[in-house]
Amino acid sequence: MNRPVISITTDFGTTDYDSGVLTGVILSIAPTANIAVLTHDITPFNVLEGAVILSRCAPFFPDGAIHLMVVDPGVGTKRRGMAARIGRQYFVGPDNGLITLLVDQVKAAGETCEYFALENPGFWLPDTTNIFHGRDVFAPAAAHLSAGIPLNEFGSPIHDPVFLPIPDPSRTTNGWKGTVLHVDHFGNLTGNLTGKHLSGRKSFTIAINGVRITNLTPTYGSAHPGDLIALLDDSDYLEIAVSQGSAEKRLNACVGTEFELSFQEQP
Amino acid sequence: MNRPVISITTDFGTTDYDSGVLTGVILSIAPTANIAVLTHDITPFNVLEGAVILSRCAPFFPDGAIHLMVVDPGVGTKRRGMAARIGRQYFVGPDNGLITLLVDQVKAAGETCEYFALENPGFWLPDTTNIFHGRDVFAPAAAHLSAGIPLNEFGSPIHDPVFLPIPDPSRTTNGWKGTVLHVDHFGNLTGNLTGKHLSGRKSFTIAINGVRITNLTPTYGSAHPGDLIALLDDSDYLEIAVSQGSAEKRLNACVGTEFELSFQEQP
Amino acid sequence: MNRPVISITTDFGTTDYDSGVLTGVILSIAPTANIAVLTHDITPFNVLEGAVILSRCAPFFPDGAIHLMVVDPGVGTKRRGMAARIGRQYFVGPDNGLITLLVDQVKAAGETCEYFALENPGFWLPDTTNIFHGRDVFAPAAAHLSAGIPLNEFGSPIHDPVFLPIPDPSRTTNGWKGTVLHVDHFGNLTGNLTGKHLSGRKSFTIAINGVRITNLTPTYGSAHPGDLIALLDDSDYLEIAVSQGSAEKRLNACVGTEFELSFQEQP
Repeated sequence: MNRPVISITTDFGTTDYDSGVLTGVILSIAPTANIAVLTHDITPFNVLEGAVILSRCAPFFPDGAIHLMVVDPGVGTKRRGMAARIGRQYFVGPDNGLITLLVDQVKAAGETCEYFALENPGFWLPDTTNIFHGRDVFAPAAAHLSAGIPLNEFGSPIHDPVFLPIPDPSRTTNGWKGTVLHVDHFGNLTGNLTGKHLSGRKSFTIAINGVRITNLTPTYGSAHPGDLIALLDDSDYLEIAVSQGSAEKRLNACVGTEFELSFQEQP
Repeated sequence: MNRPVISITTDFGTTDYDSGVLTGVILSIAPTANIAVLTHDITPFNVLEGAVILSRCAPFFPDGAIHLMVVDPGVGTKRRGMAARIGRQYFVGPDNGLITLLVDQVKAAGETCEYFALENPGFWLPDTTNIFHGRDVFAPAAAHLSAGIPLNEFGSPIHDPVFLPIPDPSRTTNGWKGTVLHVDHFGNLTGNLTGKHLSGRKSFTIAINGVRITNLTPTYGSAHPGDLIALLDDSDYLEIAVSQGSAEKRLNACVGTEFELSFQEQP
Repeated sequence: MNRPVISITTDFGTTDYDSGVLTGVILSIAPTANIAVLTHDITPFNVLEGAVILSRCAPFFPDGAIHLMVVDPGVGTKRRGMAARIGRQYFVGPDNGLITLLVDQVKAAGETCEYFALENPGFWLPDTTNIFHGRDVFAPAAAHLSAGIPLNEFGSPIHDPVFLPIPDPSRTTNGWKGTVLHVDHFGNLTGNLTGKHLSGRKSFTIAINGVRITNLTPTYGSAHPGDLIALLDDSDYLEIAVSQGSAEKRLNACVGTEFELSFQEQP
């Protein structure tokens, strides 16, 4: 039987011992676990960024994959720990909204989710701290889950998981108003508008921070260096970019910046 | 039978080929090896930092784990290569003090250690260089060890392994004098004082570089941003931190900075 | 039977989701794949740097290893995707010259190569984009290859793979003219001259950007900090370095900088 993969995503960085310890804990409990580090370089405490990474990665992982995520500004407070089935995959981490975008995707595809609190100390490390639940609570839960422990043995069901307040796109008279949700490491901007909102139309205007973009570029390589462009990215999100440059800097944009998509032609 | 995990820790960084080569060498000798990268981002040549990372990670790895460490400023000189059993786990790397803190821990727990020189060229790569013992000597030794070669086949016993001169905490009239041994990537400071030195007392003063901290904070989240705080960290070390800031910068502290812990109440 | 290792090398960095997605794609197709990340930190779009890394790492990987490389400035243009057998190992990635130096090595050792275009959409992800062939085309091909699909099922043979124009060393009246091909993260310089060009001679002059080095240093440790030195590196390349410093900065050198090796003694 194949071992389910356990992906690991944190904001620990790689210069210290925290990230390595997670692997040790998992292998101590599930010696044949199949571990894949996604990244330890989430911006510290940035839960929305973690939610974006999870929603973009999970669709490319196999059924049964377990996503261990530790972006946990509330560690030591009353925020709950959680193990969840999200469609055909699993999430283990703090109940702080990391699952928001993936749950939206999965529900839009007609699948279900269930959430359980990590209350059973039998699945924690013996000496649990207030400080490092990633090591003491979440990594052990992911390992036990991969070894076949059913979700409902970890604790009682959670009926009100935390979701981030993600703005929905809103209709305008001739298009959509969207919001930037992610700035990647090149400074490319993506938000809550996708290819669906374009409905195949290629003649439009995007207005963002006083600047206009008036057509869709098929790929980075077809623009001149320095051009401000719009394209559909690798997950069908409408992306605003500067070819070989940074749209974040050019437009002075950030997560939360609004932009408008307007169609000229009559449909 | 489960394959023992081989953890890898180096100061190579990840922008070059050195780190990747270690994996290739191990898999060439032990094709089913279970490899876990702890970090390639130890500060270059910083043996003490490597010793801290090893001592903090190892307790969370399973029995039989093999820790391959290459922080090796003395490569090409007469420093010995070493394979060691440290309690119920193994170390492979230069004999330069990387094991110091882990050996202290293991001996304090009543376990034993044994050390062997990597002298037998039958377990080296065929064309060994003066420059890259990580690849030519240490990675092959870790791979052969994982494949079941007994320690004493690698070479003769070492009776005087190198240990770093780690200062012990010293008693003062009303407390302890400690020394900073590690500055993490947030600028948090830990040293050679632990929860044991507090003996459960919560009323005390810590004096460091002319500044005083007067109580123990249960967790980062319970302090205000910018507060200078003391807490017991995830491995029970007394930690000096600035909430959402850097104690290293605030206090102008570094590895070697001394601090005093004083108790007011009479025990 | 041992699973072949799939090494992954990209210029994606580790702060975003791109690098993690590759692992998910591979495990979705080949759940028992044995994945080893070499680095995600190739300088963006630097194909020559990727070619150097591949040629330095591959000799230390086992026969049958599959090297997945995504350094792909031409994604979305007409550059071909390629799966190749290079001696006893495999390459999957863009046909843009990444294999240049490894093919030179392998042919010099008397081995053969064969190249095939990634044309068969049956081995792509279902919804292939113009933007992320690493995820949609190359990672699936590496996974299918590891699962036993023969190379010639991926597409038709390529008879004219792209090779980078690497300068050959040229003879001078009393030595060789070489070119810097790689600057490592310490600022050490290596090029196209190796131990073979020295033919065992230790008395020589290296002239580079107006500065002279007049002997071979056995190892970094035997030089004084700040010394400008020449040595044979861990792959027998002639390396120009500054002990505990940067030859790149000291000499204002870069990839493409020429240097001359001159022998004084009569052979």
